[in-house]
Amino acid sequence: MAHIQLPADLPGIRGPMAFRPETARPLNELAEILLHEPNSLTAGERELIATYVSSLNDCYYCQTAHGAIAAAHLDGDEEIVRRVKADFRRADISEKLKTLLLIAGKVQTGGKNVTPGDIADARATGASDREIHDTVLIAAAFCMYNRYVDGLATWQPEDDGSYAQRAQKTARQGYVSVSEEYLPKK
Amino acid sequence: MAHIQLPADLPGIRGPMAFRPETARPLNELAEILLHEPNSLTAGERELIATYVSSLNDCYYCQTAHGAIAAAHLDGDEEIVRRVKADFRRADISEKLKTLLLIAGKVQTGGKNVTPGDIADARATGASDREIHDTVLIAAAFCMYNRYVDGLATWQPEDDGSYAQRAQKTARQGYVSVSEEYLPKK
Repeated sequence: MAHIQLPADLPGIRGPMAFRPETARPLNELAEILLHEPNSLTAGERELIATYVSSLNDCYYCQTAHGAIAAAHLDGDEEIVRRVKADFRRADISEKLKTLLLIAGKVQTGGKNVTPGDIADARATGASDREIHDTVLIAAAFCMYNRYVDGLATWQPEDDGSYAQRAQKTARQGYVSVSEEYLPKK
Repeated sequence: MAHIQLPADLPGIRGPMAFRPETARPLNELAEILLHEPNSLTAGERELIATYVSSLNDCYYCQTAHGAIAAAHLDGDEEIVRRVKADFRRADISEKLKTLLLIAGKVQTGGKNVTPGDIADARATGASDREIHDTVLIAAAFCMYNRYVDGLATWQPEDDGSYAQRAQKTARQGYVSVSEEYLPKK
């Protein structure tokens, strides 16, 4: 049972978002810009960063939801999501994404753990300042979303099918659009 | 030196915000709603929660900036800010705020660490669902802001006077208004 009274039928972050639509709006806009809007990193790559950080934070809802959205962007490739979570160094992803996942993992443990060497390694694979910025902010933002979801003990259904179905819609339409289903009009 | 090329004259979070104004907007809107807009928790109380979490995350810029904003809201009382960071149980604050700071500290270490007992203790002092929600989200959000500021190795000046001066303005006008100084018009 959630720590506060939330709508019974909305899983994960959607419960507290419906409870407090004022804060839900900037939270969804941030996800939209970081994960869905056009970017030199693909949506699939950015969702893999979000999924990896959520798995490090042990947030079942976020790693399942964003893992499913990553797979939806990657032609349904669920294996790559599993490999990134288990050991991204051996996953079939670019060297650039590996250096960015390493930075994201450092951010998860604390911002000061990112070293100039980590940044130099990312740059050597072609990562731009903007890509490094967005990686740090995606990782930092999921340290928020994960704590929001788990800190209120939200309902997190365990049927992967429901996540996969919703993921298709979110991958297609983005975060702000799908949130309009359960947020009151402004 | 910051990990990426940021405007040289903007300290802390303002550097990456000016670098990426698209994400700066929802980040400032979130701070505005959580910390500045009218709420049953005073602005001073909410800034103390933000300051406490930032000190747990060892983020010099955020704990100094928000500590100064808290003091600005609390008639210049810097001692209460120091006491909250050192040992909030002995600070001259309400019992309700003590139970909320305990929840915020748990969220900082991971959302799952908040227990039903922590929530019951907060409720027993009169905390509402909305106040518990906002406390969890403030704590979660500062786990993001702190990692964003430190994960990019931003410039963090050490003269407390500059933080105090700016704090007066932020306490008065709020986050969105002061951000308009260094963000391009939309």
